[in-house]
Amino acid sequence: MSHEQRAAIIELIRSAPQSEDRTTAGQRASFDSQFKDPELGADVTVRPTTLGGVEALTVTVGNAIRDGVILYLHGGGYVVGSANTGSFLATALARRVGTPAVSLEYRLAPENPFPAAIDDAYAAYRALLDGGTQASDIVLAGDSAGGGLVLAVLLSARRDGLPQPAGAVLFSPWTDLAVSGASLDDRAHLDPIFDRENIQWYADQYLAGQDPHNELASPVYADLSGLPPLLIQTGSYEVLLDDSLRLAVRAAESELDVSLEIVAGVPHVFPLLAGHLDAADEALDRAGQFLVRRLGYETSSQAL
Amino acid sequence: MSHEQRAAIIELIRSAPQSEDRTTAGQRASFDSQFKDPELGADVTVRPTTLGGVEALTVTVGNAIRDGVILYLHGGGYVVGSANTGSFLATALARRVGTPAVSLEYRLAPENPFPAAIDDAYAAYRALLDGGTQASDIVLAGDSAGGGLVLAVLLSARRDGLPQPAGAVLFSPWTDLAVSGASLDDRAHLDPIFDRENIQWYADQYLAGQDPHNELASPVYADLSGLPPLLIQTGSYEVLLDDSLRLAVRAAESELDVSLEIVAGVPHVFPLLAGHLDAADEALDRAGQFLVRRLGYETSSQAL
Repeated sequence: MSHEQRAAIIELIRSAPQSEDRTTAGQRASFDSQFKDPELGADVTVRPTTLGGVEALTVTVGNAIRDGVILYLHGGGYVVGSANTGSFLATALARRVGTPAVSLEYRLAPENPFPAAIDDAYAAYRALLDGGTQASDIVLAGDSAGGGLVLAVLLSARRDGLPQPAGAVLFSPWTDLAVSGASLDDRAHLDPIFDRENIQWYADQYLAGQDPHNELASPVYADLSGLPPLLIQTGSYEVLLDDSLRLAVRAAESELDVSLEIVAGVPHVFPLLAGHLDAADEALDRAGQFLVRRLGYETSSQAL
Repeated sequence: MSHEQRAAIIELIRSAPQSEDRTTAGQRASFDSQFKDPELGADVTVRPTTLGGVEALTVTVGNAIRDGVILYLHGGGYVVGSANTGSFLATALARRVGTPAVSLEYRLAPENPFPAAIDDAYAAYRALLDGGTQASDIVLAGDSAGGGLVLAVLLSARRDGLPQPAGAVLFSPWTDLAVSGASLDDRAHLDPIFDRENIQWYADQYLAGQDPHNELASPVYADLSGLPPLLIQTGSYEVLLDDSLRLAVRAAESELDVSLEIVAGVPHVFPLLAGHLDAADEALDRAGQFLVRRLGYETSSQAL
C-alpha cells in the first residue's frame, strides 16, 4: 500500500460522521450510521434465527456446501453494534470458507453489563454443540470487543470441560478492559478512531464497577492453555495495538499456536475496509485460509 | 499435533548427537553431522556459483519458471553451518515459490567476526541488484543467525539508499546478541537444543568483544522503518522465543507489515523437521504463500 492510499484512508475515516454525543443512544446511532445494513452481495441470504435462546442472523453465501459453521461476534465496545453490523465480516469469512456464519445478537451494556454478553455468546456455542455440530466443525471469529468475547467463550468452555472449536480469528481484539496498554499513549496520534478516553468510557459501561482484571473481561491476563489455534489481525494505527501484541505473547507462553499479523498504517478492525483497501481483502483472504485449514478442508471455497 | 507427536520429536532432538566439544571444530563437526548434505529431492539441481565475490550454491527445483530469486542465509550462530546446510530450507522455499534460491557461503566467526558475515551477505544482495534483478523480484530468507543477518542486510540497504527486496522470511531469528530475552530463562526447561550458556558462547565468537547492542548485530534494537514486510516463524519451545516476540513488537512500532507465527511445542528452526512433522511442512507452505504474494505471483508453484 502506498503512503498516499494510506493517508487517503485515514482521512476518510477521520471525516466520517463521529458522534460527539457521548451517550449510549448517541454512540449507537453514530455506529449504525456507518455500519448497519452493509452491502453483502446478491448471492447472500440472511435469515433470522435463535441459538441457545439468543437471537442471531445466519448468513449463507451462494450454495455453502460444507458442514462447518462460523460463530461471529460483532464489535462495538460491548455497547454498540448488532448482529446486523457484524454480518459484514461474518459474510466476508463465510464467503471464503464455504460455510454459513451466525452473527450473534448478544446483549449489550450498559443495560446488560458484564458478563451478560459472555453468557449469551457461550450459550450460543453450547447450543451448536448440543445441536450435534462437532466442535471440530466450529470456528469462532470476532472483532474488537467481539474478539475479547471470543476468548471469553473459549475460556468458559475450558473451565467447563467442553471441547474447543477448531480455531478462532480475532480482528483487533479488545483484550484489556483495564485500559493499560502502552499503545494507548504511543499510538494516540496515529489512531483516527479511538483514544484512551473513549476506550475507558466503553470499559466503564461494560464493567459497571466490576474488576477490570477479571480474566473473562480481560483475557490478556488469563492463562490461555488449552485454547485452539488463534489468528490475530491488527492495524498498526490503533491505540489497542498492545491488546494484540500482549495477547500473542500470552498465547505463546500458554503453548498455543498463534499467528499475529500486524498491517502497517491501517486502523482498528481494518478488514471492514474490504472492497476499498487491498490490504483488507488480503487480510480476509488469509483469515479465510486459516479457517479452511483449521476446519480441515482441502481448498478454499473460492477455489471450488 | 498431538502431545505424543510433540514429545517424540523433542525426544528425537534430545537424543541427536550433541557435541560436548565446545570448540569451533567440535561444534562444526556436530552441526554438519546433523545437517550437511540434506536430502533435497531428485528434481533439484545444485550449482556452485559466486555472488558479489562470495561463494554460494544455487538450487533450482524442476523447471523453475519465474524471474525472482530467494537469497537464503543459513543458521548456525555465525560460527557453524554452510551454504550446503542451508540448502535444505532454501530448497523447501524454492520448491514452493517457483524460483531458484541462492544459499550463501558467508564468512564465519571466530576466524571472521562481526561484521564479516554482513559484508558478505550485503555484497551478495548488491550483486543481485547490480546484475539487473529488480529488488521487487528478490526475497530474503534465513534461519536463526541467518535471520538476524537478513535484517542486517535490510538495514544496510536502507542506510545506503538501496531498494528493499519484496519481503523476508525469518525462521527463529536470532536478533539479540546481548542475550537478554526473558525466554532464555523462562523457556530453558523446554528447549531441547540451546541454553543461555551456549547462546552466549556463539555471541562471544561472533562479536569478538564488539558492542552487542550494535543494531547490525542485534536488529531487535534497531528502528526498522522502511523495511519490507516480514514473516517470522518461531517455535514455543525455544529460549530464543523473545528474540521473535520483541522483533515483532519492534516491527509494529516501525510501521512494518509483520506476521509472527508461533507454533506450540516445537523447537528452534522447526521447519528443518519438514518431512517428519506436519507442522513444519505447513509452516513452509505458509512461508511459500507469503513469498508468492510478496513477489506478486498469482498462485504458488505447487498449484501450477
